[in-house]
Amino acid sequence: MAKTAQNVDSITNRDVDFAKWYTDIVTKAELVDYTAVRGCVTLLPYGYAIWENIQRTFDAWLKDTGHENVYLPMFIPESLLQKEKDHVEGFAPEVAWVTHGGDEELTERLCVRPTSETLFCDLYSHIIQSYRDLPKLFNQWCSVVRWEKTTRPFLRTVEFQWQEGHTAHESQEDAEAETIRILHMYADLCESVLAMPVIKGQKTDKERFAGAKATYTIEAMMHDGKALQSGTSHYFGDGFARAFDIQYSDRNNQLQYVHQTSWGISTRLIGGIIMTHGDDNGLVLPPAIAPIQVIIVPVSQQKEGVLEAANILKYRLADICRVKIDDSDKSPGWKFSEYEMKGVPIRLEIGPKDMEKQQVVLVRRDTGEKKPVPMDRLEEDIPAMLEDIRRVLFEKAKANREARSFAAHSMEEFTSILEANTGFVTAMWCGNQACEEDIREKTGATSRCIPFEGDTSHHPVGATCVCCGKPAKHTVIWGKAY
Amino acid sequence: MAKTAQNVDSITNRDVDFAKWYTDIVTKAELVDYTAVRGCVTLLPYGYAIWENIQRTFDAWLKDTGHENVYLPMFIPESLLQKEKDHVEGFAPEVAWVTHGGDEELTERLCVRPTSETLFCDLYSHIIQSYRDLPKLFNQWCSVVRWEKTTRPFLRTVEFQWQEGHTAHESQEDAEAETIRILHMYADLCESVLAMPVIKGQKTDKERFAGAKATYTIEAMMHDGKALQSGTSHYFGDGFARAFDIQYSDRNNQLQYVHQTSWGISTRLIGGIIMTHGDDNGLVLPPAIAPIQVIIVPVSQQKEGVLEAANILKYRLADICRVKIDDSDKSPGWKFSEYEMKGVPIRLEIGPKDMEKQQVVLVRRDTGEKKPVPMDRLEEDIPAMLEDIRRVLFEKAKANREARSFAAHSMEEFTSILEANTGFVTAMWCGNQACEEDIREKTGATSRCIPFEGDTSHHPVGATCVCCGKPAKHTVIWGKAY
Repeated sequence: MAKTAQNVDSITNRDVDFAKWYTDIVTKAELVDYTAVRGCVTLLPYGYAIWENIQRTFDAWLKDTGHENVYLPMFIPESLLQKEKDHVEGFAPEVAWVTHGGDEELTERLCVRPTSETLFCDLYSHIIQSYRDLPKLFNQWCSVVRWEKTTRPFLRTVEFQWQEGHTAHESQEDAEAETIRILHMYADLCESVLAMPVIKGQKTDKERFAGAKATYTIEAMMHDGKALQSGTSHYFGDGFARAFDIQYSDRNNQLQYVHQTSWGISTRLIGGIIMTHGDDNGLVLPPAIAPIQVIIVPVSQQKEGVLEAANILKYRLADICRVKIDDSDKSPGWKFSEYEMKGVPIRLEIGPKDMEKQQVVLVRRDTGEKKPVPMDRLEEDIPAMLEDIRRVLFEKAKANREARSFAAHSMEEFTSILEANTGFVTAMWCGNQACEEDIREKTGATSRCIPFEGDTSHHPVGATCVCCGKPAKHTVIWGKAY
Repeated sequence: MAKTAQNVDSITNRDVDFAKWYTDIVTKAELVDYTAVRGCVTLLPYGYAIWENIQRTFDAWLKDTGHENVYLPMFIPESLLQKEKDHVEGFAPEVAWVTHGGDEELTERLCVRPTSETLFCDLYSHIIQSYRDLPKLFNQWCSVVRWEKTTRPFLRTVEFQWQEGHTAHESQEDAEAETIRILHMYADLCESVLAMPVIKGQKTDKERFAGAKATYTIEAMMHDGKALQSGTSHYFGDGFARAFDIQYSDRNNQLQYVHQTSWGISTRLIGGIIMTHGDDNGLVLPPAIAPIQVIIVPVSQQKEGVLEAANILKYRLADICRVKIDDSDKSPGWKFSEYEMKGVPIRLEIGPKDMEKQQVVLVRRDTGEKKPVPMDRLEEDIPAMLEDIRRVLFEKAKANREARSFAAHSMEEFTSILEANTGFVTAMWCGNQACEEDIREKTGATSRCIPFEGDTSHHPVGATCVCCGKPAKHTVIWGKAY
C-alpha cells in the first residue's frame, strides 16, 4: 500500500500484539503487497532487494564449494511425482494441478512443483553413467507452490522463492558429508550474515522430510520465543535412486545406485530477520543484507551548501557501503521515522552546523545511539560500525534465546514452563513417536530437533523420557513453531 | 545426455541440415537436457551459466537506469486476465490452467502467467496514488508458460526464462521515451555483449503485442538467413490503466490515468547466439557471456612441472578472465574438441617445450588461429584478444546479414529472391493488412519490422506498395522467422 506520513506512526506495539506488529512491518516497510491470488504476495523492491542480497551471498558460497546452478521445469507429470511412495504421500495433498493447456484437457495432469526431487532424479537418471560423472552438485533458484490453507507473508505462502540443492554421490559417506556440510553453511549464513543464532540438529522421524532417511535442521528463536525452522538438509540414501533407477558404473565397473541429498532455504529467512531483530520503530536489518546500509538525511537542506555537502558525502561513501541520500522535500523528522521503519542500519545527518564543525551526526538503528563523528573518520568508522551492529544484533538475539530456554524434567514442569513462557524446552525423549505426540497434545510444543553433539544445547538434562519415564535416547529441543 | 568421446565427432554439418546441427549443439555442448514434461527442457549448468551472465550484465544496466526488481505471483486469476479485452484474446488460447489445489476444485481457475501485465496493473492500482509515486520502473526475472504446440530448445518452449519490465509514467511522452530507451538497451546488449547485429524497428499492427498501442522490436539474422525476434518493447498508452483503474493525482490535483510500457528478453537470446556464431565444430561463444573464457590444456601433463606450470598460469589469469584448467586424464586431442564444441573463446596449450621457451600456444575459437605467445604477455594479450573476438564475431555476422539482404520492387522479384535465398527483403508497403497477409501467403515471409529512421536499413526502395501498387507508407523488412 502507498506510503503516507501517517504510516510510520501507526505500527502496533511489538509486545502487545506480535502477529499484528509483524503484519504492520511487512506492509509499512514496503516489503510486500497483498495480491488477488489467494495466499500469494508480491515482493516489492525493498523486500526483493533483501532476498537478492541473501541470494548473492549464498550463491557465491555454493559456487565456491563446487555447486552448479541449473533450471528444471516448474511442472511435474503426475506419474513422475508418484514414483517415490513416501514422497508423493507427503506432497500430493498440497499441490496445485494443471489440467488444461489452452482449450485442451491434458491426458496427464501436471502439478506445479512443490519441490523438485522427482525432476532432478529423472535428470540424473539421464546424465549419470559412471563414477566419473559424480558427484553431481546441482542447485536451482526458483519458486515453488504448496497449497497451504493459512498463509502469512514470508512465513508461509502458497508460492515462495527458495533455492533447492539436489546432489548425487558415489557413497553414503559422501552424501552424508554433503548433507552436513550444507547444514553448516546454512548456520553460517544465519549467524554471520543475518545475525540470527541457530541450533543445528536432526529432526525426529515424525518431522522428517517425505522420502528422506534423515533430515537436519537449523532452528532459530524469534523475539516472541517461538521457533522458526530456517533451513533443512536431507539425506536420502539410495531410496530415490532405486525408485528412479539412477545407477552408475563404479571404479570396478559394477553398477551401483547413487546416494542423494537435497536442501533448501527460502524467503522465510526474511520473516526470521523481521521477527528476530525488529522493534517498535519497525524493521532492523542486519547490515550485510540491508538494501540501504547508510541513509544520509540533509538537515536544513535549503541552506547553501548542505545538499552539495550531502552529495559529496554520498559519493565518498559509495565505495565502502550501500548508501543513499534522501533529498526529497519531506521533513527531516519524517525521514528519520521512515528509515527507522525500513531498518536502515546507520543514519547520517548533515546540516550547516555539522558542516562548520566538519562532522556528521551518526545514529545507529540497533541501539539508537547518536553521536557526532568527524567527517574524515567515516571511511574507518562505518565499516567497523556495520560489523559491530551485526555483533550486537546477534548477541541480543542470543540473549533473548538464553532467557527463554528451559529444561523440563517432568511433564508438569514442561507444561508449567510453557504456560508461563514461550520458548525452547530441553527435555529427554525415549524415541517413541507416541510420546512425541503426547507432548504435543499436552503442551502445544513440537520437537524442533535433536541437537548435534558438541553443541552446548545438546547437554542431557536427565536419563529418562520426560513423557513415559522409560530410558531416554535423545536430548530434544521442543517449542511452539511458526 | 552424457558426454562421451564419440559425441564431439558426430555433429551434423551446419550447411547440410541447419535444424539438426542446432539440436546437436544444444545437447552435445551440454546446454540442455530434454525432460518428461512436454515442451520443457532443463537448462544444464553450462547453458544456465550463459543465461546467468546475460542476466548479470543486463540487470546491472537496469539498476543503473533506476529500474527495481520485484517478484509477482506465477498465477493469474481468470477474472484478472480478462480485464483487458485485446490482451486476453491474445493470450487465453495458449495458457496453462490450474483447476485444483490439493483435492479441492478451485472456485476460479488460475492461469500460469504467460506474461504479467495484468498482475502488474493490479499492483499499480494499489500502490500508485500521486505523481510523486511515478514513474514506477519495475522489472522481474522469472519464467513464464505458453502452451505452444511445436517447441525447440531456447527458441520456443512451453516454459522459458525471461525478464519482463513493466513501467508506469505520468505522460505519454515519458512512457514512449522509456519504450524506446529500453529498445536501445536491448540492441546494445545484443551488439556490444552478444556480438549479434540487430535491426531496430516497429512492428506492424498485425504483429503488435496483444493490448499494446505500439510494439518495437530488435531483429537479428541467423546464419541460415532466417530472422530471430530478439527482444520487444511495448507502449500501452492508457489502455491498461483504464481497464485496471490506475489513476494518480497530478501536479494540479487532478486524477489522471498512467501511461504504461512493458518489455522483455528471454533465453531465446541463447538460441540466437548459437545460430549466429556457431560452426561445424560446435558452439562459438561471445567472450562476455562465455562461462569459460580461457581453457588451459596441459600437454604431456605427466611430465614433471607441467601441471604445476598450468596451475600457476590459471591463478595468474583468474584475475583477468574466467579461466579453467582441464587436467583430467583425457587426451589433449579429446580436450581440444570438447572445448571447441563448448565454444570457449581461447585455448592455451602448455607443455614441456613451451615451458622451456617461456611461452604458451594460444588458439582462437573464432578464427582457429594458433600461435605461440610469450608467458609474460598474457595479461596484456588476453583481454585485447577477447575484445577482438567479439569484434570479429560481430563483423562476420554483419557480413552474413549484408550478403543475405535484398530489395524487392515487385512481387515477382520478392518471390524469386526468397526462392533463391533465405534472407531479409526490403520492400515498400501501403500499410494495409491485406497486402501483408498476401505477401506472407505468396512468399512465406512475415513483416519483421518497419526500421527506425536514421537506420541504414530504413532507406526506401521505391514509392509504391510491392503488393498492391498503391502509394507506399512504410519501408518494411520482411523475412522468414524463427
